[in-house]
Amino acid sequence: MDQRLSLVTLGVADLARALRFYEDGLGWRRGNQNAEVAFFQLPGIILALWSRAELAKDARLPDQGGDGFGGVALAFNARSRAEVDGVLAEATAAGATLLKPAEEVVWGGYAGYFADPDGHVWEVAHNPFWTIRTDGSVSLEAPVQER
Amino acid sequence: MDQRLSLVTLGVADLARALRFYEDGLGWRRGNQNAEVAFFQLPGIILALWSRAELAKDARLPDQGGDGFGGVALAFNARSRAEVDGVLAEATAAGATLLKPAEEVVWGGYAGYFADPDGHVWEVAHNPFWTIRTDGSVSLEAPVQER
Repeated sequence: MDQRLSLVTLGVADLARALRFYEDGLGWRRGNQNAEVAFFQLPGIILALWSRAELAKDARLPDQGGDGFGGVALAFNARSRAEVDGVLAEATAAGATLLKPAEEVVWGGYAGYFADPDGHVWEVAHNPFWTIRTDGSVSLEAPVQER
Repeated sequence: MDQRLSLVTLGVADLARALRFYEDGLGWRRGNQNAEVAFFQLPGIILALWSRAELAKDARLPDQGGDGFGGVALAFNARSRAEVDGVLAEATAAGATLLKPAEEVVWGGYAGYFADPDGHVWEVAHNPFWTIRTDGSVSLEAPVQER
């Protein structure tokens, strides 16, 4: 199995509500027009929003409804601490729940968390040890030092 | 909030068990050496394995333990139907649970699902309408027709 991830699908209770958050709130643009599913092109990968019930059915899994932590966190790496603060403010203004305000963290970065309207967990972090390329893709390599 | 996803963290009950699956079973190579967390460099994005309990605590969320569907599915897009079958066989041989054998799906592709040892859901799909680039990154663009 090659080392790649093509798509992350977030199960949502109400696609229109989720789109109000991701499109109207965060300003993301979907790459398709379909009443059932929304695809967002991200650097190297696609994010999908789809009915949580349909997703569970498609995977042949019972769905207990999804209150609480689902065991997965997504992360948005920002280019600066100020961008972390800005993204958390933007997300909460758009209807996200602030789980943890940004603070300095033990690994040397600065990070906070929000939950989207369906409870999907996003960390928003500034990590000075990884590289965010111009196109937004992320690498474990240390950034080139600016002097 | 720029349209990107930097990191997907999968909460795991036992990192050693998870690494037996992803490293020994699937042949993935981690990009760091740390007893607490494993990072895998994927095209454009990083996959992390970390203690589910620590992840919940970090996000300030109660964790009910995570039996059942967490509302998120990851997907691995394969370059052919044969690769889908091969990946599902490889994953189940490595200890995954086969949730759905691969079959033709209504949207015109071919897909099955497995769950990793912590219950994280992976779809393995051949989607003839999207492009997988040489580096493994994925685009919503239609592939260039080969004739």
